[in-house]
Amino acid sequence: MSDQRIVVLNGPNLNLLGAREREHYGGQTLGEVEERCRARAAALGFAIDFRQTNSEAELVGWIQELGDAAGLVINAAAYTHTSIAIHDALRLLACPVIEVHLSNIFARERFRARSYVAPVATGSISGLGATGYELAIEAIAALSAAGDGS
Amino acid sequence: MSDQRIVVLNGPNLNLLGAREREHYGGQTLGEVEERCRARAAALGFAIDFRQTNSEAELVGWIQELGDAAGLVINAAAYTHTSIAIHDALRLLACPVIEVHLSNIFARERFRARSYVAPVATGSISGLGATGYELAIEAIAALSAAGDGS
Amino acid sequence: MSDQRIVVLNGPNLNLLGAREREHYGGQTLGEVEERCRARAAALGFAIDFRQTNSEAELVGWIQELGDAAGLVINAAAYTHTSIAIHDALRLLACPVIEVHLSNIFARERFRARSYVAPVATGSISGLGATGYELAIEAIAALSAAGDGS
Amino acid sequence: MSDQRIVVLNGPNLNLLGAREREHYGGQTLGEVEERCRARAAALGFAIDFRQTNSEAELVGWIQELGDAAGLVINAAAYTHTSIAIHDALRLLACPVIEVHLSNIFARERFRARSYVAPVATGSISGLGATGYELAIEAIAALSAAGDGS
Amino acid sequence: MSDQRIVVLNGPNLNLLGAREREHYGGQTLGEVEERCRARAAALGFAIDFRQTNSEAELVGWIQELGDAAGLVINAAAYTHTSIAIHDALRLLACPVIEVHLSNIFARERFRARSYVAPVATGSISGLGATGYELAIEAIAALSAAGDGS
Amino acid sequence: MSDQRIVVLNGPNLNLLGAREREHYGGQTLGEVEERCRARAAALGFAIDFRQTNSEAELVGWIQELGDAAGLVINAAAYTHTSIAIHDALRLLACPVIEVHLSNIFARERFRARSYVAPVATGSISGLGATGYELAIEAIAALSAAGDGS
Amino acid sequence: MSDQRIVVLNGPNLNLLGAREREHYGGQTLGEVEERCRARAAALGFAIDFRQTNSEAELVGWIQELGDAAGLVINAAAYTHTSIAIHDALRLLACPVIEVHLSNIFARERFRARSYVAPVATGSISGLGATGYELAIEAIAALSAAGDGS
Amino acid sequence: MSDQRIVVLNGPNLNLLGAREREHYGGQTLGEVEERCRARAAALGFAIDFRQTNSEAELVGWIQELGDAAGLVINAAAYTHTSIAIHDALRLLACPVIEVHLSNIFARERFRARSYVAPVATGSISGLGATGYELAIEAIAALSAAGDGS
Amino acid sequence: MSDQRIVVLNGPNLNLLGAREREHYGGQTLGEVEERCRARAAALGFAIDFRQTNSEAELVGWIQELGDAAGLVINAAAYTHTSIAIHDALRLLACPVIEVHLSNIFARERFRARSYVAPVATGSISGLGATGYELAIEAIAALSAAGDGS
Amino acid sequence: MSDQRIVVLNGPNLNLLGAREREHYGGQTLGEVEERCRARAAALGFAIDFRQTNSEAELVGWIQELGDAAGLVINAAAYTHTSIAIHDALRLLACPVIEVHLSNIFARERFRARSYVAPVATGSISGLGATGYELAIEAIAALSAAGDGS
Amino acid sequence: MSDQRIVVLNGPNLNLLGAREREHYGGQTLGEVEERCRARAAALGFAIDFRQTNSEAELVGWIQELGDAAGLVINAAAYTHTSIAIHDALRLLACPVIEVHLSNIFARERFRARSYVAPVATGSISGLGATGYELAIEAIAALSAAGDGS
Amino acid sequence: MSDQRIVVLNGPNLNLLGAREREHYGGQTLGEVEERCRARAAALGFAIDFRQTNSEAELVGWIQELGDAAGLVINAAAYTHTSIAIHDALRLLACPVIEVHLSNIFARERFRARSYVAPVATGSISGLGATGYELAIEAIAALSAAGDGS
Repeated sequence: MSDQRIVVLNGPNLNLLGAREREHYGGQTLGEVEERCRARAAALGFAIDFRQTNSEAELVGWIQELGDAAGLVINAAAYTHTSIAIHDALRLLACPVIEVHLSNIFARERFRARSYVAPVATGSISGLGATGYELAIEAIAALSAAGDGS
Repeated sequence: MSDQRIVVLNGPNLNLLGAREREHYGGQTLGEVEERCRARAAALGFAIDFRQTNSEAELVGWIQELGDAAGLVINAAAYTHTSIAIHDALRLLACPVIEVHLSNIFARERFRARSYVAPVATGSISGLGATGYELAIEAIAALSAAGDGS
Repeated sequence: MSDQRIVVLNGPNLNLLGAREREHYGGQTLGEVEERCRARAAALGFAIDFRQTNSEAELVGWIQELGDAAGLVINAAAYTHTSIAIHDALRLLACPVIEVHLSNIFARERFRARSYVAPVATGSISGLGATGYELAIEAIAALSAAGDGS
Repeated sequence: MSDQRIVVLNGPNLNLLGAREREHYGGQTLGEVEERCRARAAALGFAIDFRQTNSEAELVGWIQELGDAAGLVINAAAYTHTSIAIHDALRLLACPVIEVHLSNIFARERFRARSYVAPVATGSISGLGATGYELAIEAIAALSAAGDGS
Repeated sequence: MSDQRIVVLNGPNLNLLGAREREHYGGQTLGEVEERCRARAAALGFAIDFRQTNSEAELVGWIQELGDAAGLVINAAAYTHTSIAIHDALRLLACPVIEVHLSNIFARERFRARSYVAPVATGSISGLGATGYELAIEAIAALSAAGDGS
Repeated sequence: MSDQRIVVLNGPNLNLLGAREREHYGGQTLGEVEERCRARAAALGFAIDFRQTNSEAELVGWIQELGDAAGLVINAAAYTHTSIAIHDALRLLACPVIEVHLSNIFARERFRARSYVAPVATGSISGLGATGYELAIEAIAALSAAGDGS
Repeated sequence: MSDQRIVVLNGPNLNLLGAREREHYGGQTLGEVEERCRARAAALGFAIDFRQTNSEAELVGWIQELGDAAGLVINAAAYTHTSIAIHDALRLLACPVIEVHLSNIFARERFRARSYVAPVATGSISGLGATGYELAIEAIAALSAAGDGS
Repeated sequence: MSDQRIVVLNGPNLNLLGAREREHYGGQTLGEVEERCRARAAALGFAIDFRQTNSEAELVGWIQELGDAAGLVINAAAYTHTSIAIHDALRLLACPVIEVHLSNIFARERFRARSYVAPVATGSISGLGATGYELAIEAIAALSAAGDGS
Repeated sequence: MSDQRIVVLNGPNLNLLGAREREHYGGQTLGEVEERCRARAAALGFAIDFRQTNSEAELVGWIQELGDAAGLVINAAAYTHTSIAIHDALRLLACPVIEVHLSNIFARERFRARSYVAPVATGSISGLGATGYELAIEAIAALSAAGDGS
Repeated sequence: MSDQRIVVLNGPNLNLLGAREREHYGGQTLGEVEERCRARAAALGFAIDFRQTNSEAELVGWIQELGDAAGLVINAAAYTHTSIAIHDALRLLACPVIEVHLSNIFARERFRARSYVAPVATGSISGLGATGYELAIEAIAALSAAGDGS
Repeated sequence: MSDQRIVVLNGPNLNLLGAREREHYGGQTLGEVEERCRARAAALGFAIDFRQTNSEAELVGWIQELGDAAGLVINAAAYTHTSIAIHDALRLLACPVIEVHLSNIFARERFRARSYVAPVATGSISGLGATGYELAIEAIAALSAAGDGS
Repeated sequence: MSDQRIVVLNGPNLNLLGAREREHYGGQTLGEVEERCRARAAALGFAIDFRQTNSEAELVGWIQELGDAAGLVINAAAYTHTSIAIHDALRLLACPVIEVHLSNIFARERFRARSYVAPVATGSISGLGATGYELAIEAIAALSAAGDGS
């Protein structure tokens, strides 16, 4: 049985959010995103485990160690488009996985159009900035409450 | 200034929801989806204008006539992948547009991987069933409250 | 249980048959094709519901409303190559679906080589002119009599 | 023998001309384009039958019913790039067909580079705004006067 | 002038029919298919020359030696997708050629989507099991009776 | 400020016009095309500078030396499909550039479908024979009179 | 129940082994390879049925007639890359199939990178010369002993 | 040391030469081609070993058994485009190999543009009918006389 | 001179073997695979250095530090398909490299069909589960004993 | 009526023949090739007009000015693969055109595999060094004597 | 304001330089390259921060921590062709970025032709061995002195 | 033995430098670039032979006539992407060849990503404006001093 913890994993360069290209990502920092996630999760009765790394291997490791988490929210950033290792790790999960992207990846460079995360995620949310993270948490809460009977 | 109305447009074959392939779309009917949209919108202070059609031309026309709606939620179904006419109509809108898909289109046939809606939408939500519609409404409410400062 | 009605749907420009490019389609009119279908079906104990439209949406609607028909014969003409909406509608059918083309689509322009109808049809018949319609009706009669035990 | 009528058909979203993206289409309305067509045609001794629709099927139908028109000017807009049905309808015409595009479609998105109208048109004019319509009318007048001896 | 003989040629592995993958081909043996062909042909006044081989060269040879046969029914099986030699042999025939496939080749592996037989056949029938052979024979009878005026 | 001269440049093999493949280009000579250009331009108050060369480098040079010409009409013939050098030269021009092709290049070999001229031209006219040159001159006159306010 | 016989099939040109390009295949003859197979198999309690042919059809036939063999070792040589007929024959087998290549096919011409044998084989061994045959025999012995519980 | 024999191998369907499509191959029979080869070779002091087969395996075998022939002239017909087995056999030869095609394969269907023979041949001659065979024999005589010092 | 140590490197997610998708990988754990490797190597007079990591950089480092190992067995898992860094590191090795995959990668997703390891490996073994590792060790022993004279 | 002159045109860098990469072109100079052409032509009753240029435009011009030559032998060298202008010029010729390449272009870089000359040539000869020129002259003599009845 | 420090980052396997494939990289060690960089920079008044890692994540981290460096010289080695994470990190830099490759990557394997570094670099230098590093340092000095007014 | 002359060749449209698109090329004229080259070369003990042409043939000729130059700096501009003739001429050179581009060609249109110069150049420098020319001269000096021992 799953616990009441939602894991939120962030990939490379997201530590620079706010310093980064504002036309794509807005002006919020990753700390502020974390705060919004924590608040929304608390309102729904969940705790948040929020992390960032530039390392593909560390992302793979964190996914392997999810344990009984209620769900995973993952913004794999650049590794979305290149990492079969993350793809393989995600395939082993039983809990819901929501892929999040801050920007609309379909309106950017062509090499961002392919996602190795999407085919092994329950659902995807993109283009909605930090709100996308909140909606992903809400989606996990809903899936958690109802199975996949949404 | 926008009014408090959110338009939800549904494309071809969605009128058969519930009768349709359950492994992809779950067992809900479109009427039930509409109810969930209406309830969620009401809670956020919005009215819902919910429609379905099998006609590409009718979808184009409805998009042209959005007027001052607060936002558009669109599940263009099969036309997502083929309609440049809908793409062109969406480009003219000033309000937020959220693309919704019931199933994870990236885990299905290759010809469903291309979306003409995504590059002209504010954001996209897929794979979350009817919950995706609710999250889209919530996203519009958030964008409406805060501009794009999410 | 299915009734004794076979629906024959014809897509865009087939209303001009006979006026149309004779090297591809021969000199028969669509009315004459209908007559041959009706005669063959009658001989096999079936009624025919024969229709033509230039509208993709109308084809989708007709497919949705097949009810208990014994089978569907469909010549989607140009929409064969572009319509995922028709593809999606056909996937919902339980009765046999026979795709028909008057001409050999593989010996024409490259863009006619792809069929969205074929992968969701029971079988396909092409290049045999109006005779192809008659054979499609006979195929439905056979499938109807024997299940798929052909 | 052809009469002195030139048919001008306009595809999806062109009813919004003037409201639409000005960097591509300029600030004229479709009514103003119609006026310029009518004036130019009158000067050359032709009448104009000018129409717009968002429906692929309606465009197909209008092409089928051209009768003895002296020529067709067609701006199929988004359907230019996707409609084999319009392509098939145009193939049946005996009168001159001039394809018109307001903007230079080759300097825009890649998916606008393919035209199903061009291979079955007599000629194509693009990138010249409303002037392109006038030149198309002039071209039909010239072809009408001289056969294809231009 | 053609005689009253229809040749039915079967390519590699079809000798194992019935033993073979039942989800694609059903449970009939090739002998049973031959019986159904023979019966249907007899009813239409034709004799059947029914053969199978695993050899591309033998198929080419048999096609070259058709003589005055009324028509050819060919299921080239795997060679359909790879043999230009069979393609070249078929091009030399004057009688009608009907391509038959037991299963719907468009719903299987991608490498089965290409047919070198189709562009040089009069018509194609696929997905209808042994019934497809019977319909092919009927098609030849019809073409034989009426020229290509079907 | 621009002068009242329109430059018309013709690429390789156009010197043979009239001798050349008549199904694509009609029976006129390049001299006759020049005469029609000159007459049409005179009627609009412009002079014509009409040239032909088989040399890519000479075309590049002529484009560089346009000076204050009111506009450029260019039929780059075969170089249309291969010359980035001409593309680069055209990008430097401030005056209107109209691409002209005698035949409908989209209905010919596949390698003629790509144009390096089109993306850097104001507009394109194809398939209208020598009339296309006249219309191009008229287009430049219109653009000259009205800016790009057509 | 399977017998103690392992069939080893060799495709075109392998009869010339030793005479052949030494940088790819080493200097052994096919007779020597057979000897090594026979010795290794004997040590594991199996008999060897070792054959070579240049004929695709003969390979198909031999595969069809495997009977109760414990396993198949196949080096289809050039037919690896072109034969769907062999692919189809292999699909019908219930015993283990090990694909062998003497050289590393991935380090040679691009057209050798595709294998029609691989997707229907239990496993593949390449680049190890005659040792690869021995390992394949050992693999069959292991699979034979343990089911696929390796 | 090579003997004075030139082997001329002909692939599938060439036995029908003269009966075959005259626009591609002219009206000569293969017997007449053989006669011309024999005469030309005799004049140059060579004997001819001239064969035809529809079988890929037989072609491979004949290539393997060339022995000390002075050279090979090969028209592999359809197998040119599909046979890696023939490619592999040709790679083992030390004598000159001249590829011949009666017609210009580059002016026909796209699938005839690829040759597996060309990269392992000394030279290629196409489009010259039976004369091509004669020139190939002359080329072998020249190479034979002078090494590759031509 | 090489020592008697064989290095076995395992890439990302292989630490989860046994927990992982059983249809592809069977039910063994990586510890059990290691045991089988150790036993087989011992029988052949070799020691085993067996490691696993999720990190591409660590795999690169381990390859760089092979020293005088007798050979390398590498299952790079997901990095097989994406890592040019591992490819480059492997190119520097002088000892034999055997690529191993537990499952048949050619019968899975298309993106697993490309291997950056294969072109720089001595040989490859796939689809044979843990037995594949044992055979790889045996191959290295054989290569070690005989040079590449297998 | 054609005269007794054969024109031999050579493209860019062929003036350096002999200095150039010997593994592809041998050690002869272009002057020596010319001598061999002249001798062979004289023996057949023809004169030779032999030229070389690095200029695409000059090649186009020379082709246009062939007049009543009995035939054209053309080695367009690098322009073979890039020049549509030469392609267009060759299409206008009535006399036989033989394409010659010194080396086997199919065994070199991929970008040399495409020829714009081949589809508009009567025949092609490659890989035979200077002998190829001689055979081309003989081919023209044969075609000249017999029409295309070779 | 930037300081007088130039950062030089080296990617995977470059620590083995000198041991590595000499035909591509020459015989220098990375230490010697560092010395040359340091000397050249000193002569221009800059300090050097020179590092190497096999880890993509560490490269990303180093790029994020450049601070006020005057410029970055980066040889990302294998990650050049696969890392969007490095691409994203580089996009955030304000200082000049010079991409360096020791060998000419365009003359090697096809998969080395794509660079994710190039589109976000100021300039690129390849094929010049260690000299390329020195030139990169000089380029940064020049850009530093003059802005981009070079 | 090489002399102390470095040849700098510039391709089409570079004569307009300074007048040209400033966002790509900066505001310098080609005369100013020449001056900088001359100064840098003088400081290193070399003379400069600096030329520009719009003609592909002239570039080929100049490359052929380099004589004993110490090295070649070439900015082939648009011909970089289309000229196999220049590629072939460069292959014959023994001296170092440095390819230069003023702008970063990888950040521009897709058709500028291919270089026919790069694979036959010693090295490439792009994106550094006129400084790139100076660095190229320095590179030749270094190569000249040290052979390729850089």
